[in-house]
Order: sequence, then structure tokens, then C-alpha cells
Amino acid sequence: MSLKSKQYTEVPGGITAPEGFLCHAVSAGIKDPAKPRLDLGLIYSTVPTVTAGMFTTNKVKAAPVRVCQAHLKLNDVRAILVNSGNANACTGPRGIQDAKAMATVTAQALNLKPTQVMVNSTGIIGLPMPIDRITAQIPDLAQGLSRERHQAVAEAIMTSDTKPKVLAIEVPLGSKTVRIAAIAKGAGMICPSMGTMLCFITTDAAIGLPELKKCTSDGVRNTFNRISIDGDTSTNDTVLVMANGTAGNRRISAGGPQYQAFAEALEYVMKRMSHMIVSDGERVTKFVEIAVRNAGTHMDARRVAETVANSLLVKCSWNGSDPNWGRVMHAIGYSRARIREESIDIYFDGHIATRNGIAADTPLDVLKAAVAKREFTVTIDLNIGSADYTVYTSDLSQEYVDFNCTEYAVRVASDDQAGAVSPWPRPH
Amino acid sequence: MSLKSKQYTEVPGGITAPEGFLCHAVSAGIKDPAKPRLDLGLIYSTVPTVTAGMFTTNKVKAAPVRVCQAHLKLNDVRAILVNSGNANACTGPRGIQDAKAMATVTAQALNLKPTQVMVNSTGIIGLPMPIDRITAQIPDLAQGLSRERHQAVAEAIMTSDTKPKVLAIEVPLGSKTVRIAAIAKGAGMICPSMGTMLCFITTDAAIGLPELKKCTSDGVRNTFNRISIDGDTSTNDTVLVMANGTAGNRRISAGGPQYQAFAEALEYVMKRMSHMIVSDGERVTKFVEIAVRNAGTHMDARRVAETVANSLLVKCSWNGSDPNWGRVMHAIGYSRARIREESIDIYFDGHIATRNGIAADTPLDVLKAAVAKREFTVTIDLNIGSADYTVYTSDLSQEYVDFNCTEYAVRVASDDQAGAVSPWPRPH
Repeated sequence: MSLKSKQYTEVPGGITAPEGFLCHAVSAGIKDPAKPRLDLGLIYSTVPTVTAGMFTTNKVKAAPVRVCQAHLKLNDVRAILVNSGNANACTGPRGIQDAKAMATVTAQALNLKPTQVMVNSTGIIGLPMPIDRITAQIPDLAQGLSRERHQAVAEAIMTSDTKPKVLAIEVPLGSKTVRIAAIAKGAGMICPSMGTMLCFITTDAAIGLPELKKCTSDGVRNTFNRISIDGDTSTNDTVLVMANGTAGNRRISAGGPQYQAFAEALEYVMKRMSHMIVSDGERVTKFVEIAVRNAGTHMDARRVAETVANSLLVKCSWNGSDPNWGRVMHAIGYSRARIREESIDIYFDGHIATRNGIAADTPLDVLKAAVAKREFTVTIDLNIGSADYTVYTSDLSQEYVDFNCTEYAVRVASDDQAGAVSPWPRPH
Repeated sequence: MSLKSKQYTEVPGGITAPEGFLCHAVSAGIKDPAKPRLDLGLIYSTVPTVTAGMFTTNKVKAAPVRVCQAHLKLNDVRAILVNSGNANACTGPRGIQDAKAMATVTAQALNLKPTQVMVNSTGIIGLPMPIDRITAQIPDLAQGLSRERHQAVAEAIMTSDTKPKVLAIEVPLGSKTVRIAAIAKGAGMICPSMGTMLCFITTDAAIGLPELKKCTSDGVRNTFNRISIDGDTSTNDTVLVMANGTAGNRRISAGGPQYQAFAEALEYVMKRMSHMIVSDGERVTKFVEIAVRNAGTHMDARRVAETVANSLLVKCSWNGSDPNWGRVMHAIGYSRARIREESIDIYFDGHIATRNGIAADTPLDVLKAAVAKREFTVTIDLNIGSADYTVYTSDLSQEYVDFNCTEYAVRVASDDQAGAVSPWPRPH
């Protein structure tokens, strides 16, 4: 992920760095009623916005995703309410009712229509929302809106993330300067079974809706979709970009030079957030770029890149800093791409490990040093065509398994102990 | 995997239980020249055979697979030579030469043609075969052929297996009784990145080649291919069935009742071997049957079963005995099968966990007890059609990651230390 191609000036202020945005975050006791932690956040634009959104392609969609999609169609978004600790997924008609209630109560507090509010949730699947505790906090949340609490909002959306993910930059646009800011929460594991990825982006640029939609979807395709293998998205994945035009720039229109500059800056922000997400994946110790070169077709290049990135045995080898190129060959072989075994070259961070499908003569120590780095590139040259594709992935650690093996039972038991917070029909 | 459907009498004698088969195994110092362990085995039929074979669909094929496929076409197999410790994969023209040398030297020792010998290898990918040490042992191997060393041969093909996998049964066939015997080695991890699976089956039944091919491929489709997800086979996977006709039964012909009886018994043997392989997967603690019911199409049923079986997050939950049905829903949602979220029911070992896509009211303790078992079934009822599909899988343990993270570097270094056994051009 080349982050050096274009440098932008970073600015303080987080998600409220662009003009006209306010935010706040509180604890609603969703993550744990006994130990209050930030788990409910609100982002608000003081003026009307143009907003673009991209949502999970998973056929099992969380209730808030369905509600967001409906509200977004009306093209009049002013606020984003987001909670962590409960995904409100696989919760049936009651889940939809809860998501709508979150929008309605927020709208009342902000003097908006419910359809002007986006709602987002992340956390465990299959448990009912503690909706009364959430709605009880919303008036305070609206009351406390300011430009100060941006760090708290970045923290309120975290689940298994070890650190908040925030970026705000300035972008010169003609005679004006606009700002783009983002917060994100990471994935349980980036691939193959992605946990929820949420990213909220604010900008004070003035831009038309078709233009914002286009640069949002182009950016997502080149960044977030390169870390979400095979459409293997969670039930809740959401990217929202709100543009409120307060920077006073001439409205960005399709095809103009300012469109290009804005789209590049937006993609840069998305790239940086993608990088933060992979690096902070659950118990991840390595950030690995898999670059496939000279495949016969774009689809073949993508198949090879995603198959290698998804291979458990390959991921384990990264964890142990093992330059096990044979496992990479094995994954290439079952990727269903057209290949010629005897034409394949594999490089670990520029050092050739495999030439013409067999061991190259690079010393083992050099290869070991290459894959021992915190970040490195695996280049796979198929030497049969001219199509390229790159994905970004991580290793697989023992701690990941440990971390992910008891979530549901522990959570249900602790919810029960906390006094059956949820009105869900509890088993006898 | 219903193993109770048909009971057969088990008999002693392992792979040489059927008449007319001999075997032997020795150490050739392939696994570790310093500490000799059984790693070279030979199976021999004293009379001509009819032999069927099924091979990996991986496009990166090990040299011995290519040689076997060529020899099998001539339909005159008499012997199987197999080594563990080195896969002879990604070894280029030299690998082919080594595999041919193994066949040629074995043929000389047994007074056969090279094309009458099948060669099989399993172990690390990408390192050259210590071919001189292997060929040096072949005369002794041939000399020592008997019906006594069947246990040693089962051990000689083991790599990460913790125990040998052997079965021999008797099958009444008209007025005669035939025997079918098998040995197998397991997979690194059954799915998604399968290590090498080898299975050798001997029988003294008399059967025509087309009939043996048909029941072999039918059996593999219903057994070994249900544990090898998505064609995700290794570079070396091989199943060979040798029939030498010494039982004196009337030759089994297509469509007859004896064909049916033999095919059922062969499939039973393959099922038992599949079960042994999954149960003994690397650091596996659970054997899980994923049964999809009432999908719209066969392909949809298969997609759901394989996607759930492959999900890292689902596998982790089995490891922790966590009845995390939300993760199963999430995997169903990205399987690309047609589904209706609100129609899905999920059962853990017969206890309903999810009804109509949301939590059922079965007590948590009951669900926890269901998935705490060493073997259990996850039934996914899609309730939209009538197609079913079942796969067999395992959990994912921390120890698996530990076990798989340094193979290549450790092996290359130890080979070097052992005096650069291999004539491979060693880095300076």
C-alpha cells in the first residue's frame, strides 16, 4: 500500500476537523453494564449534507444496515448515531424496530426527521439490543455536541481494536482548502472471516451527490475492498462519507481537475484507514502486501492474490517469519487461476525465493530477514500475461484463536449475570 | 458421517490382509538423517492387478503425481513405492528425474518394468529429494517383502499424523468372501489448506477396470472430497485402489448385485479412513459434521456447507466449545448461496439454536453441552428448497498455528546442519 505517493498536511480535530461538524460520545452500558466504557457516539452536521454510503454485501444484513439504506435514499442526512458492543444482527423484526427507535429518538433530540439520521451498530451477533439504555442516553448525547470530543467518538466505535483509528487532512482545491477526516473501527480478522468494518468520513467540501458517490465507490474498491477478501464482509460493514460544503469551494463537478484532486485525497484517507485496520487486526503481528504480476486476466490475478492471502498455512508461516514459498506455490495451484508452474517467480520483499517454480538460490538468512519484518511484500510473477492485482493481509497468530473461541457463551452468561438486562426471552 | 449404516467384519493384517499382497518399510533418513524413522514403504502384489487412481486437482502437481498418472494409463500396476519427509513438489525437471529413478530402481529390484511401479511422496514442498539415500534402500525394501510389516508401512507414510490409519474388512460376495484393506496419511489441516492426503487400498476381489474406476470415483466423491473443501487439494493428494483377483470370486461386473455390494464396502472403507484423517488433523480437538438441508440447489447446499466449514471464526468457536450461532449465520450470508435470512434454522447436535434467523429459546447450557462434545453435528436448514449436502470438518486450535509457523526455515537449517545431504545448490 503505497502511502508515499501523495503527501497531505495532517490537521488536528479528528472527525470534526472539517467545518460544521460536531460530535459527542458517552457510555450506555452496552459493552458491559457493570463497567461503563464509551460505546455510543454521535456525529452531526450543523448544515445539510450530501452523503454517500457503501454497505456490506453479506446476505445476512444487520437491522441498522437495512435502516441506513432506506434513509440514505432520501438524500438528506444530518447525523450518524453509532454504537459498539452489539451488532443488532440476526435480531428479526425487533432489531428493525430497535434501529428505527435509535433514529427516531436521535431525530427528536436534534429536531430532525428520523430519516435524516443514520444508525450503525457493531459487536456481537444474535443478541437483542439493550434499547432502553441506549435511548436513555441520546438526549445527553445531543446536548453535549461539540468539536472537542472527537477522540471519544473514535474510541466509542472500537470493539477488538487496540487503538482508535483517526485521520484528518487538508486538501488544496483551487483557491480554497478543504478538509477530509475519518474514523474507523477494524475487523476481527481481516480475512477470510471479516469482523465488522465501519468507517465514517466527514468533509467540508462542496460536491454534488453523483460525484461523491463515484469517488466513494472508486475509493472503496481500491482500498477497503482489497482487505476484504472475496466479498467476505460482515453483517454490518458500512462506509459513510458526509460532505457539508462549508469550505466554500466551488462545487466539485464531474470531470474537472478539482474532482480528480478531491478523489485522490479521499482515496488517500481510505488507504490510510485500511492500513490502520489491517495493522490493528486481532492479534496481528504482520502487515503483508500480496502483489500478483503478469497474470492472464484481471480475475486470475485477483484469484491468486486472494487465495494466497486467505491460506491458513501461508498465514501461519508469516506468523513464524518462515519464508515457506512452497506453501505459496501450493495456494497458487488451487486458486483456479490459469498458471504455468514452471513460469512462476516469487519474491519476499524484493528477494527472489522461487525462480521458474523451483527454489532460487537466495540465502535462507536473507529470505528469513525479509519475512521477519513487521511489513513486507510478497510479489508473485506469473509471467503469462499482463494483469496485476494487489491485496493487503496479515498473519494468523495463536492469540487470535484464543481470543475468538468463547465470545458468545461468555457474553450471554455475563449479560445474564448483569441482571438480564435484555428483554429477550431468556431460557428457563 | 454415519458409520453405522453397514457393519463389516474387521480382520487383522492391515494392507496385506487381502491375499497376494506383500509389503515392507525401512528408514532412508529422509525425515531426519540423524534420527532414523520409518519413511520409505513398498506395497507389492504377487500377481497382476487392476488399479484405479484419483489425484490432486491442484495445478501445481508434485513430480510423483505426474509420473503416477503416466504409469497408471498403461494399466499394469504391481507395486507402490511411497516416502514421507519430502513431497518432491516444486522441484522442476530434477524432481521428475528423481521420481522416475524411484520407479526404475524399484522395478529392477522386483523384476518389473518401471511403468508397473507407482511412486508417491509426502512432506515438505520445494526441497530436492535425497534420492541417493532412497535408491540405496530399495533393494533391501524389496528383499524384505512379507505379510508381517503392514504396521511399519502404515507408520512410514505418516508426517504430522499422531497415529497410523489402517483398516481391513471382509465382504461376503456371493459364495466367496473378499477383503478390502486401506492405509492413509492425514492432512496438515483438513480445510481450507489441505496438507497431503494419501490413501492406498488393496483388495483381492476380481473386478473389471471400468467397474473399479467407477466405484473408486463415486466413493472418493462421497468421502474424501467431503473433507477437502473447494477442490483445495495439496500438490500430492493420491488415492490408489489395487485389485488382484486372488479371492477367486466371479469377476464383478457393472450393474450386478455384487457390484453394489463391493462398491458399498469400498465406500465404507473410504469413509472410515476419512473419519480417521479428520479426527487426527493437526492439533484437532473436534470432529464436526456440517449438514445443510433444504437449499434451493445442490450447489447452494454445498456452498453453505463449505463456507461454514471454512470460516476461521466458526472454527475458533468450536475450539472453545462456544455455541456461537451468529458466526454461522454470518458465514451463511457470505456463502453466495441463495438464502432467506428469516427462514434459517440452525441446530447444534439436534438442539435448535436459531429459529427463523434469530435466537431460539434453547437454554445456553444445553447448546454449550452440545458443542462441547468431541463429535457433533451442525444442521443448517435453509427451508427454501430440497437440496442437501454434508461436509466434515474440525476446529482450529492455537497449537495448529504454533505447529505450522516455522516448518521451512527449521527444515532447511537442519538439512544444512546434517551435512548438506541434498545436492541442491546451497546458498553461499
